Amino acid sequence: MVSSGLPPSNATSDTHNNDDALVLSDDPLHPANHICELCYKFYGHGWVTGTGGGISIKRDNHVYIAPSGVQKELMKPTDMFVMDYHTREYLRRPQVFKPSACTPLFMAAFTKRGASCCIHTHSQWAVLVTLICEAGLQDSGKDVFALKEIEQIKGISRGGTGSTEIAEGGRKLGNLGYFDTLKIPIIENTAHEEDLKDTLEKAIEEWPETCAVLVRRHGVYVWGKDVTQAKTQCESLDYIFQLAVEMHKLGLKWV
Amino acid sequence: MVSSGLPPSNATSDTHNNDDALVLSDDPLHPANHICELCYKFYGHGWVTGTGGGISIKRDNHVYIAPSGVQKELMKPTDMFVMDYHTREYLRRPQVFKPSACTPLFMAAFTKRGASCCIHTHSQWAVLVTLICEAGLQDSGKDVFALKEIEQIKGISRGGTGSTEIAEGGRKLGNLGYFDTLKIPIIENTAHEEDLKDTLEKAIEEWPETCAVLVRRHGVYVWGKDVTQAKTQCESLDYIFQLAVEMHKLGLKWV
Amino acid sequence: MVSSGLPPSNATSDTHNNDDALVLSDDPLHPANHICELCYKFYGHGWVTGTGGGISIKRDNHVYIAPSGVQKELMKPTDMFVMDYHTREYLRRPQVFKPSACTPLFMAAFTKRGASCCIHTHSQWAVLVTLICEAGLQDSGKDVFALKEIEQIKGISRGGTGSTEIAEGGRKLGNLGYFDTLKIPIIENTAHEEDLKDTLEKAIEEWPETCAVLVRRHGVYVWGKDVTQAKTQCESLDYIFQLAVEMHKLGLKWV
Amino acid sequence: MVSSGLPPSNATSDTHNNDDALVLSDDPLHPANHICELCYKFYGHGWVTGTGGGISIKRDNHVYIAPSGVQKELMKPTDMFVMDYHTREYLRRPQVFKPSACTPLFMAAFTKRGASCCIHTHSQWAVLVTLICEAGLQDSGKDVFALKEIEQIKGISRGGTGSTEIAEGGRKLGNLGYFDTLKIPIIENTAHEEDLKDTLEKAIEEWPETCAVLVRRHGVYVWGKDVTQAKTQCESLDYIFQLAVEMHKLGLKWV
Repeated sequence: MVSSGLPPSNATSDTHNNDDALVLSDDPLHPANHICELCYKFYGHGWVTGTGGGISIKRDNHVYIAPSGVQKELMKPTDMFVMDYHTREYLRRPQVFKPSACTPLFMAAFTKRGASCCIHTHSQWAVLVTLICEAGLQDSGKDVFALKEIEQIKGISRGGTGSTEIAEGGRKLGNLGYFDTLKIPIIENTAHEEDLKDTLEKAIEEWPETCAVLVRRHGVYVWGKDVTQAKTQCESLDYIFQLAVEMHKLGLKWV
Repeated sequence: MVSSGLPPSNATSDTHNNDDALVLSDDPLHPANHICELCYKFYGHGWVTGTGGGISIKRDNHVYIAPSGVQKELMKPTDMFVMDYHTREYLRRPQVFKPSACTPLFMAAFTKRGASCCIHTHSQWAVLVTLICEAGLQDSGKDVFALKEIEQIKGISRGGTGSTEIAEGGRKLGNLGYFDTLKIPIIENTAHEEDLKDTLEKAIEEWPETCAVLVRRHGVYVWGKDVTQAKTQCESLDYIFQLAVEMHKLGLKWV
Repeated sequence: MVSSGLPPSNATSDTHNNDDALVLSDDPLHPANHICELCYKFYGHGWVTGTGGGISIKRDNHVYIAPSGVQKELMKPTDMFVMDYHTREYLRRPQVFKPSACTPLFMAAFTKRGASCCIHTHSQWAVLVTLICEAGLQDSGKDVFALKEIEQIKGISRGGTGSTEIAEGGRKLGNLGYFDTLKIPIIENTAHEEDLKDTLEKAIEEWPETCAVLVRRHGVYVWGKDVTQAKTQCESLDYIFQLAVEMHKLGLKWV
Repeated sequence: MVSSGLPPSNATSDTHNNDDALVLSDDPLHPANHICELCYKFYGHGWVTGTGGGISIKRDNHVYIAPSGVQKELMKPTDMFVMDYHTREYLRRPQVFKPSACTPLFMAAFTKRGASCCIHTHSQWAVLVTLICEAGLQDSGKDVFALKEIEQIKGISRGGTGSTEIAEGGRKLGNLGYFDTLKIPIIENTAHEEDLKDTLEKAIEEWPETCAVLVRRHGVYVWGKDVTQAKTQCESLDYIFQLAVEMHKLGLKWV
């Protein structure tokens, strides 16, 4: 659906002189198309209600970012911002939109974890688990969501990309196992989204096994080495957060 | 989908002599098309179940209104009523339908707030928060829904259009911040929808920062300066109402 | 979607000799097409899960009925049974399917109320309200669901068709008002669906204002004078049942 | 949708030399197409979130199996594994994917019950009923889910295929009746999915009337003599599990 309204792309190089060449492609997996398709799907999941949430995909040195404050299910490839990964300058900046305040947070996942896709949702299940933790209603502690012995945990990779250096030395690979405890750090929300940068970066550093950071009363950031991994981990986490809320309602313990 | 079944419009002026010229257009954002597309989406959200709810869009001096008592997901542009904004006379009035009883309420948002789109939903989450308030189960008071420190509140503009005169003098602009308390007044329902007019107008006047009015045991009216703002605020509010109900079930306080 | 795979119908009369002429039409509102489209929608609502539920439309002397035990979202017009309204003989009876056990129940709504569409769902909300009543957890009594002062009640017509003779004499017309109490009788389930016939007919007779009969631990039958009325009343009731379950969870009274 | 992107199949025999001939067909009910369409639908039901879950269809001596670790809603027929039923050798094994760890579990339903379709979901309702049983919150026991007197139980066949030998001798046919108690055994989860094989086979043997096996904190396996039966039983069970969780929240007993 995304690509059907597009003129066939005949761009052969993405020179900076040609703004639209960065975002027009008839490849449905081109980041500018892929972001539109994913946001349409995420809208259906209730993750990006009312312009909330966002997504960024890094391809080579180009970072594609959905704009701020737009209806996520209706985005077009030409709405997309494109940033140079190294210089952090905008190669493409649609004048009618504001850049996403999530940009420094997406970049944190790219630079500190080698991720190339990062998804931010306002999922109600993510918000509710942070509230349950804040109120001390489960034993996982105020600043971390923890759950164990649920099969879907096996859908989560160590560090978000399946490879992480653990502080005590040694390197761990692959996904969590059924008997591992999933732990996702929770940081406090701030008045302005970009002000989450320092605490989010700190959480990424302090939790080498995490694929995500929860933001209290706000939502979650989830990353992966590619789009598939980021998206499927975001789905698995959302399933886990919803299950955790339902478990809590039934009086069942998470850990 | 909405426009696919339409004959290509060759209307070049919307003279009153030509009824259908007011509603036939191949522009998907023409109000008559846009209302159909939005109601199809709102049906999927559970907002306009069983002919409930409604929507109106004002463009220049024309007010487009979905008819009363129709299946909202199946509307066609030719089902639409069109009213002159100043004279309040119908420029177009399909004989097979009844005009919407919500019309004076939509007009209140247009005249008192300068809105140009107003959405009325029967969302169950809206109804449930009015019931929770009525029963005094939260501290927000019987006649106002209040919630604070939830990120999605930032999706709500002051006054519904992002500009409002506050009683104590001074003018406030833009959206609510994370540390602002969202407050939505609740009015009592009446036997006939049009009888809500006076209390709804009074609520709009007494609550200059609100973008919406809740109607007890009934639903909510939400407006915006344009369709995008009205729709995204309606989504954000619905997200907030649902979250508030879930918070209540978990024993968590709203404020 | 339903009609797209059909050969253009060239039937000019529905003689009994030509089986398929009764169900092939390029009119999307022909009962055989309409039933397919509605069941696809009802599947999305969770009303006809796993071959459960059903629907019948009467047009003139022909009664169209979805077969028993089929995947309701995948039906084709040629799957349809057609019965003569007066003789109750099948004019069309696909050999690969079984006739619906709901048939005598649909006929009860047609003969006793003058309805021309009847919908049967297995909605979980319908089942849950019958369980809440059975357990005596609300004040409405074991054998009747009752709710009042909810706007959506206004979507329900007296008697299901908007015209009914009340026992004490007099005739009531139109829909319920906001201050009327909605009451839906509940009958006990039986081992075989067709055995519900007598108690369902008795409930229809004893409750002249009802548009529906709930079947304990099973679901609901809802009718209307035409398809639109039956469908929108079924939606309004389902909304009301779901709201009632949520109200019950919040400790709120129905009446 | 599944078949639209496929070249028209001109395969006339599925020789092992021609890998793609096993999976390319313009028949939407060919197992390779059917699996894709079903997984797209199951994704919408929340059954195969984040690469979880799976499905297998047996046709003649060919067993078609969705690969491990893929986005189930996006599968293509060429993603499919094909195994010889008798030799258990792969006739087709896409090098880019891993075979499903569910394979021995699907085969158990085929060999021990004569099923030809088996569906594995991670449905949250399935997981939650296993947790409720584990915690002893209902009377059905820790290792079996039981529910009775709910109409949807009639959608479940004895043994999953409608024919089963009961231990005490005698043969039972057809579906459960309204007054039968539905019982689904629950087995404990293991670190690796393939290690469920022995306990799942044991459960199938010990529960001749069951059409499914629940796996604690994991999900459910459901089978049928054909795709329609497996799918509709999976839907009926999921409906029943969700209803059971809601009943539990309302303080109602399952048996």
